[in-house]
Amino acid sequence: MTTSPLPPAAADRAARIRQSFADRRLVRVAGAHDGLTARIAEEAGFDAVWASSFGISAAQCLPDVSLLGLAEYLAASTAMHRAVDVPVLADCDTGFGGSINAAFTMMQFEAAGIAAVCIEDKVFPKRNSFVGSGQELLGSAEFANKLLAATDVRTHPDTLLIARTESLICGAGVEEALRRAHDYVDAGADAVLVHSRSPGPEEIVEFLRRWRRRAPVVIVPTTYAGWSSDEAAEAGVDMVIYANHGLRAMVAAVRSTWTAVLEHKSSVPIEELIAPVRDIFDISRLDEWLRRDR
Amino acid sequence: MTTSPLPPAAADRAARIRQSFADRRLVRVAGAHDGLTARIAEEAGFDAVWASSFGISAAQCLPDVSLLGLAEYLAASTAMHRAVDVPVLADCDTGFGGSINAAFTMMQFEAAGIAAVCIEDKVFPKRNSFVGSGQELLGSAEFANKLLAATDVRTHPDTLLIARTESLICGAGVEEALRRAHDYVDAGADAVLVHSRSPGPEEIVEFLRRWRRRAPVVIVPTTYAGWSSDEAAEAGVDMVIYANHGLRAMVAAVRSTWTAVLEHKSSVPIEELIAPVRDIFDISRLDEWLRRDR
Amino acid sequence: MTTSPLPPAAADRAARIRQSFADRRLVRVAGAHDGLTARIAEEAGFDAVWASSFGISAAQCLPDVSLLGLAEYLAASTAMHRAVDVPVLADCDTGFGGSINAAFTMMQFEAAGIAAVCIEDKVFPKRNSFVGSGQELLGSAEFANKLLAATDVRTHPDTLLIARTESLICGAGVEEALRRAHDYVDAGADAVLVHSRSPGPEEIVEFLRRWRRRAPVVIVPTTYAGWSSDEAAEAGVDMVIYANHGLRAMVAAVRSTWTAVLEHKSSVPIEELIAPVRDIFDISRLDEWLRRDR
Amino acid sequence: MTTSPLPPAAADRAARIRQSFADRRLVRVAGAHDGLTARIAEEAGFDAVWASSFGISAAQCLPDVSLLGLAEYLAASTAMHRAVDVPVLADCDTGFGGSINAAFTMMQFEAAGIAAVCIEDKVFPKRNSFVGSGQELLGSAEFANKLLAATDVRTHPDTLLIARTESLICGAGVEEALRRAHDYVDAGADAVLVHSRSPGPEEIVEFLRRWRRRAPVVIVPTTYAGWSSDEAAEAGVDMVIYANHGLRAMVAAVRSTWTAVLEHKSSVPIEELIAPVRDIFDISRLDEWLRRDR
Repeated sequence: MTTSPLPPAAADRAARIRQSFADRRLVRVAGAHDGLTARIAEEAGFDAVWASSFGISAAQCLPDVSLLGLAEYLAASTAMHRAVDVPVLADCDTGFGGSINAAFTMMQFEAAGIAAVCIEDKVFPKRNSFVGSGQELLGSAEFANKLLAATDVRTHPDTLLIARTESLICGAGVEEALRRAHDYVDAGADAVLVHSRSPGPEEIVEFLRRWRRRAPVVIVPTTYAGWSSDEAAEAGVDMVIYANHGLRAMVAAVRSTWTAVLEHKSSVPIEELIAPVRDIFDISRLDEWLRRDR
Repeated sequence: MTTSPLPPAAADRAARIRQSFADRRLVRVAGAHDGLTARIAEEAGFDAVWASSFGISAAQCLPDVSLLGLAEYLAASTAMHRAVDVPVLADCDTGFGGSINAAFTMMQFEAAGIAAVCIEDKVFPKRNSFVGSGQELLGSAEFANKLLAATDVRTHPDTLLIARTESLICGAGVEEALRRAHDYVDAGADAVLVHSRSPGPEEIVEFLRRWRRRAPVVIVPTTYAGWSSDEAAEAGVDMVIYANHGLRAMVAAVRSTWTAVLEHKSSVPIEELIAPVRDIFDISRLDEWLRRDR
Repeated sequence: MTTSPLPPAAADRAARIRQSFADRRLVRVAGAHDGLTARIAEEAGFDAVWASSFGISAAQCLPDVSLLGLAEYLAASTAMHRAVDVPVLADCDTGFGGSINAAFTMMQFEAAGIAAVCIEDKVFPKRNSFVGSGQELLGSAEFANKLLAATDVRTHPDTLLIARTESLICGAGVEEALRRAHDYVDAGADAVLVHSRSPGPEEIVEFLRRWRRRAPVVIVPTTYAGWSSDEAAEAGVDMVIYANHGLRAMVAAVRSTWTAVLEHKSSVPIEELIAPVRDIFDISRLDEWLRRDR
Repeated sequence: MTTSPLPPAAADRAARIRQSFADRRLVRVAGAHDGLTARIAEEAGFDAVWASSFGISAAQCLPDVSLLGLAEYLAASTAMHRAVDVPVLADCDTGFGGSINAAFTMMQFEAAGIAAVCIEDKVFPKRNSFVGSGQELLGSAEFANKLLAATDVRTHPDTLLIARTESLICGAGVEEALRRAHDYVDAGADAVLVHSRSPGPEEIVEFLRRWRRRAPVVIVPTTYAGWSSDEAAEAGVDMVIYANHGLRAMVAAVRSTWTAVLEHKSSVPIEELIAPVRDIFDISRLDEWLRRDR
């Protein structure tokens, strides 16, 4: 396998995240599922894009239960990377198998310019963290081996490996989350994502208090949305991911648009609510492309 | 090349469109760009899905100027076909080249179960019909040859070939649109899509009056949205495609969602406006999938 | 998920295999890794093509250890299906995960027209059967559940589900192979592939003797090549797969060709040994395609 | 569109070709169609790999007449790039359309790490250069615009743009080939590929004599194979591409292997002629991968 160091621009993107971590500037990240939703997030002002497994699956009308594999996630992540200038963080599920797969995941995503690869400590095939049943943790040592395998093949020092622990999702408690987070950082993870589906931030707060900023912490405040990003940063969070709100906004808007069009037998009543065609041209930079046609 | 007749279910989907045409029941079609937007359209009550080249390009954050090819359109159309039970109509641009490419397009899309293939009479590479400049018509005879090449390789009699004329878009007038529409039906097209970007339906109305229902007519009332589907059906239209309103609704909604999240440093203010996570689970039929896990 | 019954031509291909089984006519199958090698096998006279996971991985210069997933195997199998008229049998490893993945595998491959899906009873991620270490069997009941999940979503009765047991590869013995083969046929498998890497056919012969033709048996005589297909058929084998000889022939030939070209600083010395350009044109049916260009 | 400079390793690969040109060291290139054939060429000692449109099409059992597009060529080229350490040169046909497409081609292939993009001055859709009829040249100025569009979006100075003129293939003569070659270098091409299908090298020799080494020259001596690479280098050639001999060797070898297996009802008679399974393991570096599984 040829060593293919991270492209400079991509390295630069990864370095920007590392710099934010160093500066204690909260990194605000939006979940996306294709190039268009990635660019909308960037234009809104987000610092990075999360290539969400939930979103990428949903875009294919499939549940987030490991039906799609590395190829589909890589294609979607690459499309996002090409659409934006901010860093893309790839939600790589469990790393698509064992240690060998985790290594392959790092190779393929890094070669595509992805700034950060995130893998989680559940058993493959996994279930989305908000599914009520069937959540199962992988052994801590086994997951640490996956992290080691991924870092071994990393070719550029700035590429980030984020270890996501599902300890809280699986009901194993803060103690276990801490133990695992330490193991994962020992194994080479650059940051830990501690996922929770509690209605409040209490268990995250406890984690942060006992973690004492050993390494950057990432959160996904889907269920404890009332905890603002300012409060999170204050408590020691380094990155906050709003993972699925764009997707959910899209579903509501497309649904009500189509219902209205059918009901009114015309698109007139909804024209004011939706973006004009010209906006789509602008987002996709039509004029810049047409200038290439001499 | 092996003959691979249309799958029965797909044939059945194509037959449903033919039956609607025979019954003079207007076929109402929504543009989509991935499996999710296709299923939302189906759930809203549309009779069919239009795999829009504008939408598929935009989803990759690219303008609709023939940058993507058969492979990308086929992948997107196949994902839509798998997500819905209604027929999928593939917007195949110019057929991706000459007659040989038009034949290959029919082969590949029919094998994927697509009910209808639509190709247009512009020069490759094309520009989106709403781009103000650079619209160029292909010779009528040359386009008729592409239609013949496509019908020659069709393996199931129900699969539809829709010929789209850009005569009005290119400023060639209703007379030319009629002349071409007749040539295209002579060459084997099952329906004609007459595209217009006039603010009113006048030129379409004139076309329909002189066409005298020789073959089914498809319209895309983006600019003349005030003309209701009832009026269109009354005037002789057989299929109306709302090509891009879902995409535009999505852009507006995702944009305002992300702006609000950043401004409020929390997703709380927009939670009521967006679909709950559970809705995404339902659309992707999570429970049905989980039941497969014994 | 829409039901999409097997395309008639594909159904017909699957039915041909079932008919051969019924008639006790040995089905001779060649391993292939792309459309070209599939068609060469067909032209040589094989009854079917095996879309080999070993070959598909090797073509990407990757080892056969579950690095590639459903998407890559499906793309390769589809390319083979389009290139030939004989049935394509897809080597689907472990079904790419658990029961849900096995169901998804059947859905996707059947929709693509593949005549037979074969899954094996090893733990995911698997290792190629000829790798000396790390071979691990999945529990029999768990694998039977995967077979049930796959048959549940099958939409056409002729599509074949082949259960491959790696009992002999994993050193579990003929007794275990028989026990599992019975369980798998009970769970709905249409045939069993009993894999062995013994230098002689003895364990296969013993299996066949005790199996008493309960259901069709498939073998892959890579290591016990001395056992002819006539002998195998006589002993009760219904299908013989020569899985990797085309790949291995290609490696040897390409290697010696390039070595000679570099050594002689010209392709002249090897021109007589290789196919003329015209042969490639003929295999890809150039003239038939050019006739479509009016 | 984000600027994504060439990855350092890829830049290094492109730089190696530039250095060879500067040093007047002939660059010897082998055509390949997938990762495996690329690596075999590298192991044999070639300096670079040509991701051949003829080969990539043939691998899908399709003729080389612009049926496949950018996506398929990019996927195949990327697979080759990942499989080898030598530079990959992508045969990009006509650039898949007009100037906009040529720009997109450069963007996409450069982002994938491809060292050189080659586009040719025929009308899209093109036919393979060895097809006897239907060869048509694009206007010289129009092609120069495509080259300009491609160089405009190039992000790393080492990436090569090779302009291929089909003047001799189209019967336009050496004078026209020279005129075009000069125009193309003026427009930013880093090298010119002068294609010929004469049985002898005379027209290439004349071209070289009159060209006076203005810029590096690439040849593809398929029909004039008797002209050795030493003679070519002496006459002023900088790169020689053996475009299709690996493919043709493979076809001959796979065909005779399968015929023998069917005839002898066993693979025994051909076992000595083909590579052992262990060789496939070694080429795909199985042991290196297994070491990642702790």
